[in-house]
Amino acid sequence: MAQTVPIALSMGDPAGVGPELAVTAAAQTASAALPPFVAVGSHRIFVAAAQRLGVAMPVIAVASAAAALALHGKALAVIDIGDGDYTPGVPDDAGAALALASLERATALTRQGATSALVTGPIAKSRLARIGFDYPGQTEFVAAACGIALTDAVMMLAGPHLRVVPITVHVALADVPRHLTSALIQTRATIAAAALRRDFGIAHPRLAVAGLNPHAGEDGRMGGEDAAIIAPAVAALRAAGIDARGPLPADTLFHAAARETYDLAICMYHDQALIPIKTLDFDEGVNVTLGLPIVRTSPDHGTAFDIAGTGAARPGATLAAIRMAGQCAARRAANV
Amino acid sequence: MAQTVPIALSMGDPAGVGPELAVTAAAQTASAALPPFVAVGSHRIFVAAAQRLGVAMPVIAVASAAAALALHGKALAVIDIGDGDYTPGVPDDAGAALALASLERATALTRQGATSALVTGPIAKSRLARIGFDYPGQTEFVAAACGIALTDAVMMLAGPHLRVVPITVHVALADVPRHLTSALIQTRATIAAAALRRDFGIAHPRLAVAGLNPHAGEDGRMGGEDAAIIAPAVAALRAAGIDARGPLPADTLFHAAARETYDLAICMYHDQALIPIKTLDFDEGVNVTLGLPIVRTSPDHGTAFDIAGTGAARPGATLAAIRMAGQCAARRAANV
Repeated sequence: MAQTVPIALSMGDPAGVGPELAVTAAAQTASAALPPFVAVGSHRIFVAAAQRLGVAMPVIAVASAAAALALHGKALAVIDIGDGDYTPGVPDDAGAALALASLERATALTRQGATSALVTGPIAKSRLARIGFDYPGQTEFVAAACGIALTDAVMMLAGPHLRVVPITVHVALADVPRHLTSALIQTRATIAAAALRRDFGIAHPRLAVAGLNPHAGEDGRMGGEDAAIIAPAVAALRAAGIDARGPLPADTLFHAAARETYDLAICMYHDQALIPIKTLDFDEGVNVTLGLPIVRTSPDHGTAFDIAGTGAARPGATLAAIRMAGQCAARRAANV
Repeated sequence: MAQTVPIALSMGDPAGVGPELAVTAAAQTASAALPPFVAVGSHRIFVAAAQRLGVAMPVIAVASAAAALALHGKALAVIDIGDGDYTPGVPDDAGAALALASLERATALTRQGATSALVTGPIAKSRLARIGFDYPGQTEFVAAACGIALTDAVMMLAGPHLRVVPITVHVALADVPRHLTSALIQTRATIAAAALRRDFGIAHPRLAVAGLNPHAGEDGRMGGEDAAIIAPAVAALRAAGIDARGPLPADTLFHAAARETYDLAICMYHDQALIPIKTLDFDEGVNVTLGLPIVRTSPDHGTAFDIAGTGAARPGATLAAIRMAGQCAARRAANV
């Protein structure tokens, strides 16, 4: 289906790899089969990044998101939100402020419908915190901007080999058990299943729910949470008509044959979800926020200040994030 | 170098996949480049397993381990320890007793030097516990038989893509932090480094030490153990001349480029170690016990009662365990 509205791509921190990845994505629009997108940030910084990379693709400021459609595959279309320094690898507060302005504008455009989806470039959370950004990360900001409770904004990481949802995320390992509740697992798994149907075209999503403890607790011999918290959540999900199985031993959940048996692995904590997906799909992982009124994706990597400006950043995750955002937006549009 | 002493392979539970994997290994001795080995168990059970699999390789009882050498590649040589039932998929106490007798005899032969290494077939721990086996698993039994304290018997899992040592193993996730100490990490990492030099021919082993918490704690924002427990252990290891790095974020430790930077990943808990290796090397994972006076390996899978006798069990891990045992034994013999 023809895209009549482009995707918004926020710039991320100007000292990180965000600007150059936007330029690279524009240059690879045809080969990577990307839908139309418009970058939101500093026109001058994108021009400087293109020059530094030696990318010939023009960088053209547009007055509206709609104007980006005519430039699809011909230029990096930019909604210019103001000037800023471009010093790769050297973050500062002014750059963080520009990154935040880009995020805010790209989010607003998408909420208004001027852009069909939001793809966020990498930011430095600690930098943003210094200028008063009061969210753990972009996901939380976007959820709040959309009026969605944090519990209901579900992070999914998706790559060519695997999709995972961590039930708890940035929690110390010792605190994971006390953060886990049956209700939290049910809520997040239900939102994830609905999103797989709506945005990913999976009519009957199969969920594999990982156990918390070794061997999923082995009948209570190693921890009681699997039986007390996870099993009832799985039973409730099944009773609600969701094809969920578990708790399953996490160590045997991610090899090739096991992955054939489900569409999404529901994991209990950060590393249980992120170890397998980063092991399998390191350069192509996409972070998707499920449960929002807008489509939001992001390349699953950070600012990479250490390689910013060198051209070493691999664009796979950004290309995949833009492509996935386009697919999700198209499915939503088709079902409206 | 010519092997002058064969490897001992214990049968495992006769109702599991152990007997058929021994037969398959013998049949594939040439194609898998296996060193000479002798199976320790019930001659009749191995014969029955071979018949069931339709394997033409003869099964021949030998009077001593040394007699197995002449049968290398020609037959499955068996040290017959007594008769027993062969009912795949239906474990019972008599089978568990036979599995234990096989383990005891194979361990004794290896301790005496009649066999050069011990490869253990899969047992059912809960079955063995019913007949008075007072160890969590075979590793602990073998360590005790060798007079080695459990702390000093270190489990390493090794596959074609990765080697990992979990510092804690069969511990509920909530209890992992309180089981972790700098001393335990130092002890196990030191034993592992010595074993990589002695048994694996790695002159200067590089150890990557995983953090416990997400992002290795992110400067204490998510848990204090990385800074308080793991970092001092890494510093002490380095001071002792061991090439250790860490604590490193676990999620980015196992992709292909990261794996190039180390020989062994030291992990803090069961799933942190077993998720990546089972994701990457599911059918070829070998469990090696480091720090023992004997070489001991094992295929990293269980009895698989559900598929025992069907011929569906994949022999890759058993072949790899026998091959690795032979290589380790040869290196030890060469350095005596």
